Amino acid sequence: MAQLTVYLSGEIHTDWREQIETGVKQAGLDIAFTAPVTIHENSDDCGVAILGEEDKPFWKDRKGAQINAIRTRTLIEKSDLVVVRFGDKYKQWNAAFDAGFAYGIGKPIIVMHTPELTHPLKEVDAAALAVAETPQQVVQILGYVLTGALPGR
Amino acid sequence: MAQLTVYLSGEIHTDWREQIETGVKQAGLDIAFTAPVTIHENSDDCGVAILGEEDKPFWKDRKGAQINAIRTRTLIEKSDLVVVRFGDKYKQWNAAFDAGFAYGIGKPIIVMHTPELTHPLKEVDAAALAVAETPQQVVQILGYVLTGALPGR
Amino acid sequence: MAQLTVYLSGEIHTDWREQIETGVKQAGLDIAFTAPVTIHENSDDCGVAILGEEDKPFWKDRKGAQINAIRTRTLIEKSDLVVVRFGDKYKQWNAAFDAGFAYGIGKPIIVMHTPELTHPLKEVDAAALAVAETPQQVVQILGYVLTGALPGR
Amino acid sequence: MAQLTVYLSGEIHTDWREQIETGVKQAGLDIAFTAPVTIHENSDDCGVAILGEEDKPFWKDRKGAQINAIRTRTLIEKSDLVVVRFGDKYKQWNAAFDAGFAYGIGKPIIVMHTPELTHPLKEVDAAALAVAETPQQVVQILGYVLTGALPGR
Amino acid sequence: MAQLTVYLSGEIHTDWREQIETGVKQAGLDIAFTAPVTIHENSDDCGVAILGEEDKPFWKDRKGAQINAIRTRTLIEKSDLVVVRFGDKYKQWNAAFDAGFAYGIGKPIIVMHTPELTHPLKEVDAAALAVAETPQQVVQILGYVLTGALPGR
Amino acid sequence: MAQLTVYLSGEIHTDWREQIETGVKQAGLDIAFTAPVTIHENSDDCGVAILGEEDKPFWKDRKGAQINAIRTRTLIEKSDLVVVRFGDKYKQWNAAFDAGFAYGIGKPIIVMHTPELTHPLKEVDAAALAVAETPQQVVQILGYVLTGALPGR
Amino acid sequence: MAQLTVYLSGEIHTDWREQIETGVKQAGLDIAFTAPVTIHENSDDCGVAILGEEDKPFWKDRKGAQINAIRTRTLIEKSDLVVVRFGDKYKQWNAAFDAGFAYGIGKPIIVMHTPELTHPLKEVDAAALAVAETPQQVVQILGYVLTGALPGR
Amino acid sequence: MAQLTVYLSGEIHTDWREQIETGVKQAGLDIAFTAPVTIHENSDDCGVAILGEEDKPFWKDRKGAQINAIRTRTLIEKSDLVVVRFGDKYKQWNAAFDAGFAYGIGKPIIVMHTPELTHPLKEVDAAALAVAETPQQVVQILGYVLTGALPGR
Repeated sequence: MAQLTVYLSGEIHTDWREQIETGVKQAGLDIAFTAPVTIHENSDDCGVAILGEEDKPFWKDRKGAQINAIRTRTLIEKSDLVVVRFGDKYKQWNAAFDAGFAYGIGKPIIVMHTPELTHPLKEVDAAALAVAETPQQVVQILGYVLTGALPGR
Repeated sequence: MAQLTVYLSGEIHTDWREQIETGVKQAGLDIAFTAPVTIHENSDDCGVAILGEEDKPFWKDRKGAQINAIRTRTLIEKSDLVVVRFGDKYKQWNAAFDAGFAYGIGKPIIVMHTPELTHPLKEVDAAALAVAETPQQVVQILGYVLTGALPGR
Repeated sequence: MAQLTVYLSGEIHTDWREQIETGVKQAGLDIAFTAPVTIHENSDDCGVAILGEEDKPFWKDRKGAQINAIRTRTLIEKSDLVVVRFGDKYKQWNAAFDAGFAYGIGKPIIVMHTPELTHPLKEVDAAALAVAETPQQVVQILGYVLTGALPGR
Repeated sequence: MAQLTVYLSGEIHTDWREQIETGVKQAGLDIAFTAPVTIHENSDDCGVAILGEEDKPFWKDRKGAQINAIRTRTLIEKSDLVVVRFGDKYKQWNAAFDAGFAYGIGKPIIVMHTPELTHPLKEVDAAALAVAETPQQVVQILGYVLTGALPGR
Repeated sequence: MAQLTVYLSGEIHTDWREQIETGVKQAGLDIAFTAPVTIHENSDDCGVAILGEEDKPFWKDRKGAQINAIRTRTLIEKSDLVVVRFGDKYKQWNAAFDAGFAYGIGKPIIVMHTPELTHPLKEVDAAALAVAETPQQVVQILGYVLTGALPGR
Repeated sequence: MAQLTVYLSGEIHTDWREQIETGVKQAGLDIAFTAPVTIHENSDDCGVAILGEEDKPFWKDRKGAQINAIRTRTLIEKSDLVVVRFGDKYKQWNAAFDAGFAYGIGKPIIVMHTPELTHPLKEVDAAALAVAETPQQVVQILGYVLTGALPGR
Repeated sequence: MAQLTVYLSGEIHTDWREQIETGVKQAGLDIAFTAPVTIHENSDDCGVAILGEEDKPFWKDRKGAQINAIRTRTLIEKSDLVVVRFGDKYKQWNAAFDAGFAYGIGKPIIVMHTPELTHPLKEVDAAALAVAETPQQVVQILGYVLTGALPGR
Repeated sequence: MAQLTVYLSGEIHTDWREQIETGVKQAGLDIAFTAPVTIHENSDDCGVAILGEEDKPFWKDRKGAQINAIRTRTLIEKSDLVVVRFGDKYKQWNAAFDAGFAYGIGKPIIVMHTPELTHPLKEVDAAALAVAETPQQVVQILGYVLTGALPGR
């Protein structure tokens, strides 16, 4: 079992997860990462693809979201730490929901977003133990948390 | 103490809370409502107005959001049921965060939004016990939950 | 607030709830009773009557069952004691589900059924603190629990 | 330790457990399965066979059901996910009780049954994150949850 | 509602409960007391008197003890503080069980016994926040806890 | 029952509690305050004064601290919000312990101290939802939390 | 990690623990056993032997009992199942306390004692999932719980 | 996984952690130790070194303390036992906070300090299961807890 299990929630259209995982590997840290299904199309279609078609989009979405919830709830509950990334596009209410859920069950949270989003994310940031802007900062936090070492020292 | 305490989370720019409260009063239901501070300006400024100015917007927002969290966390924890309203404008990440938090601590949730928001809200809806479109529907649910009566019967 | 709050789960086609409530009133006990909606038709239709019709019975049932869950979950969680009645007809899986839920969240349980059902109900009975056959026995248990008095002494 | 531990509750007279386990093995998924004792006779007799005979069936059932509860409670609590299967015969109140218990302690639930049982199972279905009709669908859900892959893609 | 609710567990053959209640009343403290059924005969017979006779003493005791548990578990869970009295006679394992249960669910405990019992009660005492010898000391502790006043000052 | 119950932990040698209570009364807020015993001498002596003298200061302190814990633990658990005040003198480890305990059981915390103590209190401040310097600020926070009003608006 | 971890609480003057462990080994079951320190003298003296002598037996016992509690509390919390043995001698209040503690934190319990103790142990038995008389029966229960097999079948 | 995981909280300016770890290794005990970052400078600077400079010391401390909290909260929650050391210098409020947090989430605690600190630490000591003066005593307690052996026997 890794020393730390980190769930990476949120944006699925950029490579921030890969950047963090690569950085952590380069730093030699013993961390396991988990995440939601990041294949957008599968994530949307899983309910009807497995359990049968629906006429109404509402129920298609319900079936899919609940199957995804089996994965996300389980992995968030098993994690030691949740990183939530907000990108520049889309509503991303699922990311904010994950942050609220993680907070409700007592998981430490790191939020990652650009400064432009500071005001609308202020309630989410206020529940976090760190607010980062870049994957590199998240890697540095994880490195410090496990080893006590700081960059450049 | 009222029979039921309902926390009304989310949108603060339309009168949906008043509509629900009026409807509930007209129906003669014994329900107490709680909510975040809905005076937008005060909600934004409370941190610096009480605890002193900040140069950086990030810390102004932090101070304010944490004071607001004293109210929202306490009231959500004391409620029996949480209604979360998503409107047509703004990011509303705090509403999704509240939904996630309520779900994490085991509160029943009713979500209220127009059909246009069904897809981006699918993860939030999937955690709810009812998804309504109008305040009238919320009033009818509350009436049914307390009395067993249905509209028009 | 009453001395004890008792949730009466299960069968809705006989007058066992009234018998218990009448017996308790005659005994002068300070007990509040709660229950699911017992108007069968409303309980089945509440979802579509309030939130709109569905073509598929599956989703009609889902909408209704989740609205009913707002009531039942909340009242079971607020109760001190849950009485679960199994009658001679129907599947009554909701009654067994309620018993399991009550047990999972740590509520004391009294089960009530005729001896014919002993074998199929053995797992439910095994989670109960008393297995009664009649409403009168439930009234006597409640009376003893509150006052220490036994019938005929 | 497997990536996921799944408890298979309910019907013991068909081979649905074997079908799921075989399908999961064929799909190369790292899942551990647990279940109640499925030898019907032993499950009925374990109490008196070990702890001594009883004259009354009620106490024979009690002794047996409580020993079985040592196994079922422990395994449900240790699982990540509970699948509950309802067949076409018998009362199966223990399956509904397991579903309620799993829900009460916060485990994600998949229910599996044919469409004929939709209405009487509506409260149980409403607590589930997926309602499947076949073991193959359960295997596909488990595969998607672990790998993100969908059948035929 | 009283300022403090105190459950008085243990010995039922001396008047220690009355002494504490009288002392508290004389001191004008706003405390509600709860206790098990202290009519020994009723406590022993409640199971069979209500739910029907048993041939084996084992099952007579089981039926009775479980009905008593409805009362004791509920009242201990509702209390703010548990006082457990050990007398000079009998096994009193139910008193030690109550102490362990109260400790397991996080209730503050006061134990009351004479010095002769110090060694065999050392594990119970070690879980308590106070070990008193007399009802008067318990009254003084309760008075201090509510008012800050000490005897003779 | 008051709208909010606030536990005032920490320093007992200045009148900060009275200032907060007076300010809240003047503002017409419906808040109940609780606190440890603030009579220093009684707080030190309660153990031996009630339960008998000790030769070793260690056991005198143990007896007293545990009786005080009956009060403080109970009141912190019953509160909605904990205010922890650090003064300029003494070790005040009990105040920091209270803050940690309140955080561990999920209570919102306001810390109050002068800027000189910022660095040594940084871990305590980091667990708080507000860090105030004066009783007036605490009163203003409480007023805002209950009414949404800000000073001077 | 073993399939099951079983804590063996209670009597330390007979070889019942060895009998269970031997029986389990002979049956080829994958079970790990834990227990309190069973060297009576060390269990009594550990407090003063490590932390320094005490004049009063009360504090000697306190120091020892609390160090023993580090072991017993931790191991009971880590166990899947608690077996509590009551012998024919001594007060054994620590065994009853362990049973209450285990029950309070939700552990399944097996109690083991001779029929003579049925009446005084009725409250403890009523909280157990099995009441055995011999180590052989406990081994058979453990075997059945892990494998479904019954003796002689 | 080690038999026991022990978190070593508090003083970072003497070698007490090394003494305990060395003693445990010499005694051949299977114990894993965790601790906060003990490089004082890094612990103070981690926030601004990773997430950017701050003008105000208050926010520098906040950023750092919250990143440190990711480590300390996670490790305390994962530990079986928490040892809290108070030295002769500094405020050490974080040590007392850790003790309170550990107590709030139900971890057994050993406190270690010299007799001079007995009075100001009385509330912290009162929450502990052992109060030691030296690292050797802590090693002996850990040895006894795991093996039942006492020094010199």
